[in-house]
Amino acid sequence: MKYDLAIIGAGPAGLSAAIYGARGGLKTIVFEQALIGGQIVLTNEVENYPGFEEILTGFELGEKMKLQAQKFGAEIREETVESIIIHDSDKEIKTSEQNYQVKAIVFATGASPRKLGVSGEERLTGRGVSYCATCDGALYRGKVVAVIGGGDSAIEEAMFLTNFVSKAYIIHRRDELRAVHSIQQKALKNEKLEFILDTVVQEIIGENQVKSLSLLNKKTSVASELIVDGVFIYVGISPNNFLIKDILQLDNQGFVVTDDDMQTEIPGFYVVGDIRKKSLRQVVTATSDGAIAGFMAERYINGY
Amino acid sequence: MKYDLAIIGAGPAGLSAAIYGARGGLKTIVFEQALIGGQIVLTNEVENYPGFEEILTGFELGEKMKLQAQKFGAEIREETVESIIIHDSDKEIKTSEQNYQVKAIVFATGASPRKLGVSGEERLTGRGVSYCATCDGALYRGKVVAVIGGGDSAIEEAMFLTNFVSKAYIIHRRDELRAVHSIQQKALKNEKLEFILDTVVQEIIGENQVKSLSLLNKKTSVASELIVDGVFIYVGISPNNFLIKDILQLDNQGFVVTDDDMQTEIPGFYVVGDIRKKSLRQVVTATSDGAIAGFMAERYINGY
Repeated sequence: MKYDLAIIGAGPAGLSAAIYGARGGLKTIVFEQALIGGQIVLTNEVENYPGFEEILTGFELGEKMKLQAQKFGAEIREETVESIIIHDSDKEIKTSEQNYQVKAIVFATGASPRKLGVSGEERLTGRGVSYCATCDGALYRGKVVAVIGGGDSAIEEAMFLTNFVSKAYIIHRRDELRAVHSIQQKALKNEKLEFILDTVVQEIIGENQVKSLSLLNKKTSVASELIVDGVFIYVGISPNNFLIKDILQLDNQGFVVTDDDMQTEIPGFYVVGDIRKKSLRQVVTATSDGAIAGFMAERYINGY
Repeated sequence: MKYDLAIIGAGPAGLSAAIYGARGGLKTIVFEQALIGGQIVLTNEVENYPGFEEILTGFELGEKMKLQAQKFGAEIREETVESIIIHDSDKEIKTSEQNYQVKAIVFATGASPRKLGVSGEERLTGRGVSYCATCDGALYRGKVVAVIGGGDSAIEEAMFLTNFVSKAYIIHRRDELRAVHSIQQKALKNEKLEFILDTVVQEIIGENQVKSLSLLNKKTSVASELIVDGVFIYVGISPNNFLIKDILQLDNQGFVVTDDDMQTEIPGFYVVGDIRKKSLRQVVTATSDGAIAGFMAERYINGY
């Protein structure tokens, strides 16, 4: 089958690329193997996507973007992309169902927060377990939280959380943090932060909401329970780069570097959203990436 | 008065910065001298801001963003900023009303439509000369108008005008339009539109009201007069850089170059939205800029 534009991934970045591509006159197809709407579908409350003064669920927001893309003629297919083949300006996509010849590709497969892998984590995600302080921090005003991790992100997000919470514990499995020195220095001066080192989380406890953490000090082998209202997990994020890791250059963390127009080193191949190297991974930065790529793909294909 | 973050301009970029800044715990103030909501307030139908599958007016979208920013505690004041003074890390803003000491600034004053620069244009503005079909189109019901320009905006606005007028000429100085193909295709099918290419406007004629245009075909050098009731001008935009042109470096068109974090050469001074050098000026790229700047301002102010 032939299309102008193929978009791989139907999160906010991919759907926005579909809105702009299809509205710009491109015959557009979007492939999604899991959740149409992407990671936000798992988010209970989105309150900081500009334009929605009333809180909506991630599912609702994803659904709106899907309908909007379809309104302009984009097709969305629940097929798994198995490989991407680039021959000069022709591009071929093989899915679980069939092959597609396309003129431009927008790659929007996102990134996934790394899981701790402990009991309670999955069940309580969105009920006290979060992977995004920028998204959820404001919901913990006056409360006590734990941040798991010892890298830059963990410490930065803990610092950010102290704008809201009464106390944040930083729990790290080693005896020193990995975060750069200057960030550590700032964190040590922050009276709302308390460090619990050499310690791992064994279980996240709570029925419908996080109540406490079961901890183990690895040096002393002493187990303990820490009462918290929420737990923010920052043990890394993994870009979903399986399909492009042999095609595009990646940075040392596996993210893709593009120019401001979302263009990669392959003409007509754009990368958008969380898999891009960027400072802020939010719905609004993803939709902006997608809009730019959809707009640029139209110009690329029509050659002006 | 003291604030953490001052935002100059309450369009989508500024309001998004306010949402992220205020929600991130910053004491935030937004200054707007004209329209809260910015230029989109003049737009009748917004159909491509991701998340709104039903068309809404620019006024409605601006209002939603305003309410969202206020919900998180941002103050919005209708005061004209008269000057910005930078002394090291301290920043001072003088408005028509008073002085403000702030720690970070997000500059979001946008850009304004460019003038044709021909005789009669200024005198007849509001008397048949318009830069906003959405504002003034309904005044031309059953009449004949001209649209000057060949880009997306020109063609889109001409299409919009055909809701009211009996005929709209699109006058463009080149032999082909710059607008995206799909928009051109739509326009070519619209029986109320007629294209006059290779042609420039030499004068807008009329005493108290536009009566006609003096035209010159650049290929044939033939001059002619076209009887119209109104003329809508879409020949580009000028950045509203008055307040920062002596503070920040500008590109050769007067736009501000920032890094990916919206940071300028002055620490804690961010520039976002249409006044930034960028490929695509849309609501969604403006809100993304604003979100990044609001996020970065919090890190800058809290020093991590």
